[in-house]
Amino acid sequence: MTGRERLFLFDTTLRDGQQTPGIDFSVEDKIAIAGMLDAFGLDYVEGGYPGANPTDTAFFTKKRTARAKFVAFGMTKRVGVSASNDPGLAALVQASSDAICFVAKSWDYHVRVALGCTNDENLDAIKASVEAAMAAGKEALVDCEHFFDGFKANPDYALACAKTAFEAGARWIVLCDTNGGTLPSEVRAIVGKVIEGGVPGDHLGIHAHDDTGQAVANSLAAVEAGARQIQGTLNGIGERCGNANLISLIPTLMLKPAFTERFELGITHEALSGISRLSHAFDELLNRAPDEQAPYVGSSAFATKAGIHASALLKEPETYEHVPPETVGNRRRVMVSDQGGKANFIAELKRRGVHVARDDSRLDTLIALVKDREAQGYAYEGADASFELLARQMLGHVPNFFAVTSFRCMVERRFDSVGQLKTVSEAVVKVMVDGEEKMSVAEGNGPVNALDIALRKDLGKFQDEIEDLELVDYKVRILNGGTEAVTRVLIESQDGQGSRWRTVGVSDNVIDASFQALMDSITFKLMKNRELAGLVAAE
Amino acid sequence: MTGRERLFLFDTTLRDGQQTPGIDFSVEDKIAIAGMLDAFGLDYVEGGYPGANPTDTAFFTKKRTARAKFVAFGMTKRVGVSASNDPGLAALVQASSDAICFVAKSWDYHVRVALGCTNDENLDAIKASVEAAMAAGKEALVDCEHFFDGFKANPDYALACAKTAFEAGARWIVLCDTNGGTLPSEVRAIVGKVIEGGVPGDHLGIHAHDDTGQAVANSLAAVEAGARQIQGTLNGIGERCGNANLISLIPTLMLKPAFTERFELGITHEALSGISRLSHAFDELLNRAPDEQAPYVGSSAFATKAGIHASALLKEPETYEHVPPETVGNRRRVMVSDQGGKANFIAELKRRGVHVARDDSRLDTLIALVKDREAQGYAYEGADASFELLARQMLGHVPNFFAVTSFRCMVERRFDSVGQLKTVSEAVVKVMVDGEEKMSVAEGNGPVNALDIALRKDLGKFQDEIEDLELVDYKVRILNGGTEAVTRVLIESQDGQGSRWRTVGVSDNVIDASFQALMDSITFKLMKNRELAGLVAAE
Repeated sequence: MTGRERLFLFDTTLRDGQQTPGIDFSVEDKIAIAGMLDAFGLDYVEGGYPGANPTDTAFFTKKRTARAKFVAFGMTKRVGVSASNDPGLAALVQASSDAICFVAKSWDYHVRVALGCTNDENLDAIKASVEAAMAAGKEALVDCEHFFDGFKANPDYALACAKTAFEAGARWIVLCDTNGGTLPSEVRAIVGKVIEGGVPGDHLGIHAHDDTGQAVANSLAAVEAGARQIQGTLNGIGERCGNANLISLIPTLMLKPAFTERFELGITHEALSGISRLSHAFDELLNRAPDEQAPYVGSSAFATKAGIHASALLKEPETYEHVPPETVGNRRRVMVSDQGGKANFIAELKRRGVHVARDDSRLDTLIALVKDREAQGYAYEGADASFELLARQMLGHVPNFFAVTSFRCMVERRFDSVGQLKTVSEAVVKVMVDGEEKMSVAEGNGPVNALDIALRKDLGKFQDEIEDLELVDYKVRILNGGTEAVTRVLIESQDGQGSRWRTVGVSDNVIDASFQALMDSITFKLMKNRELAGLVAAE
Repeated sequence: MTGRERLFLFDTTLRDGQQTPGIDFSVEDKIAIAGMLDAFGLDYVEGGYPGANPTDTAFFTKKRTARAKFVAFGMTKRVGVSASNDPGLAALVQASSDAICFVAKSWDYHVRVALGCTNDENLDAIKASVEAAMAAGKEALVDCEHFFDGFKANPDYALACAKTAFEAGARWIVLCDTNGGTLPSEVRAIVGKVIEGGVPGDHLGIHAHDDTGQAVANSLAAVEAGARQIQGTLNGIGERCGNANLISLIPTLMLKPAFTERFELGITHEALSGISRLSHAFDELLNRAPDEQAPYVGSSAFATKAGIHASALLKEPETYEHVPPETVGNRRRVMVSDQGGKANFIAELKRRGVHVARDDSRLDTLIALVKDREAQGYAYEGADASFELLARQMLGHVPNFFAVTSFRCMVERRFDSVGQLKTVSEAVVKVMVDGEEKMSVAEGNGPVNALDIALRKDLGKFQDEIEDLELVDYKVRILNGGTEAVTRVLIESQDGQGSRWRTVGVSDNVIDASFQALMDSITFKLMKNRELAGLVAAE
């Protein structure tokens, strides 16, 4: 048909990814992640190690994928017992899975020191384990642990392990760079030698770690040398520095001619355009901020700040972007900053529905104001909503919804009536809405939280509109040393319609800076509501 | 001598790194970072683009490095004016630098579309610019922008750009993967062709970006193909997905036999053992959390969680670690057992003059307390003084110099008598010293500054001792989203004797967290004075 060879993707997020410090999946997490991986189009989903812990045992009571092969991980049978008498192997074979991936020693040193058996006994264990899996009607895979270090120490024995697995009928023999320190040129050479040694490339997989920052390159080097399965994880999570990042690998395999001319995957281009969403959804599940600089999917992956590139980029994006951002569900961003030129501003405003002519003098005033504020410490590239608000104010589009006439906040720490040290934060805000003064008071976890609650307690006729506003992130950056320094506060907000926006405040007083960002957030929300309702023209 | 070839490292943290979204260096930041790079042993430090913005112009009023060559970046001369009549080139030549790195177009398409000149005019501009730099007594480098994409489109012209620069006398011709999408196999092939085409490898550099997650691999592929200069940044900051990460590259070049057998760098192994500290200090300066999974330097880079590896690791670390962690100033962490933890604690305490026996039960209590507090958000790795204080308190060595019985602070924003909006911060602190209650009030730039001043206003008999205490840095990190999140405050202090120490406070209230860190700082200073005076034994 296409004449292209099929490459297979094996996800180990739920098994090796679970070794990431700080990550601990529940059964529900695993079910959700397996569903995401299956829907995306991965070929194999390794779920964990049934029998090793209660979570994994519970997870393997059912098959958890529809399309992808569902894989249980475990050790080869122990030396000294038969396959049918090994309880670990029995748990693996009984687990609900399509395939079993056995981890096997392939470095003779570890066979002797860690297993304490002979080289031949280890080969027998590999053979018997593969046969047991196949007898149970399952596909067998063998992860050759420490394969590259083992091959450097004793190439004949490492190769014998791989060949034993292949000859016993394993569908895949996976060469693992367990310590993660192997270099791409070494991977390339050793994979080539394994193929010469008699294990065909279409039965070889690569399992790389990122200890030199080259897990992706090692995986691709193995494919170039003939391997046809890649193991990796979502966002590159995993032990130590992580595993090969499938989120970086997949777009390269599907978009770069060097690979698309020779290979095809089981993933559609439509699915590929959801890969940014997949990556971010996984971070959401882990409750961590996505890496803004992640290849392909990071919010900065197609962002330009430089004046020297920005104007050319807008004219000829295809010569400044290595792939079109929409192919991976991302978008181009031209950052507003004091390094950017006029073209950046016009493009950024246009994207927000604000059209302004290049020779409009208000544009020069806006640029001068942004530069001046950025010199004071504002960072509009991280605060899109404050930028849009400032621009619309300069260009005459934003009503004064409310005006804060004064605020006060107080933090007090003292012994309470029962002798416990207690800290109380209280804030009072006076705000004019529609000619009427509202005064609100609130307590909070700290002064900013108290102010936030007090400010949003009663905004009169706008109160209903801000009920669904929620602060989701709050960042403080001190711009130069000491407690007398200038403080920048960035606030991220969201509402019930799923919108997210970021605002900024700067002051030598952290409370002032926070309050500016809070007010901008509310004003932006009110402006956004009107824009949606068509009451304020976009221009 | 060694028979090994010299590889040169070119740092562009202060120039290309400045393109990172969210990063904006001040002149003071640039001075501090240039000092770190110079001390570490990099060969070239590119400082920025003098003439392009006020920060870079100010930074280039002086040479900022002692050992490293200090490099100014800028464009080749404009077409249509002579080198001596180009004001941009004049600004570059006049800047205080040892070398100039010119960015030049090498893709004929961009010469036509972006420069709007002929191919020959562009070659003339390269030649004239290199000659102008050399006439001013400076080393000339030429960054060939879009080199790899340009070479794919028109190899003859891309090569002509490189050769023109070489023949005009440029010390280095740097092949830039400006869009970041080139693959290692392509880099390898194209570098080889450039060398065949007549530009010697010891005049070739590589400038890679991480858009496919392979900037490190691309840099090493170029070296394998013959290039002898690598451009990169600290922690891989840079436009879009970042530049090649020097912090990942340097240990690979200095520790992996494939490179150490053939190459040497200008960095000593002693300096290499400070690379983890360098990486973390740079993140501190950016006020961002270090990447725990960063190759070589991340806190997880030598951490093991896995049951199947952990106990074997402890017996035979060298077969489970790709390099010894101490060579890069990192350390092994085994998370299932506190065996490793205990030895670390003892070593860490000993380093601070606190000796404790392995079987002292107070040590177990201290370890449990530190673990508990770190789970709450304390970060003792970044707060040596708070750690030492906690340890000495647990082991019974710290007097209660003073006790704060209560504090209160207030921030008020309102219109003053002449109608100006004004913010006032005031704090009151009550503190017991030697059985006597002192009450002090102060105003400050913000609530924390006011509290700091009030707390240090009257400490009775200790007042003389803290006169020289000064806060030099104050950092706030929000540990999870929203204004209700837990806040960690890190404070750095110094005194007249040149000591610096860091303390930490954690609370859901930023004021509380700041106050804890302030109190720890004063207590540490008083303890340190007594220790120096010999009144408190080190043990």
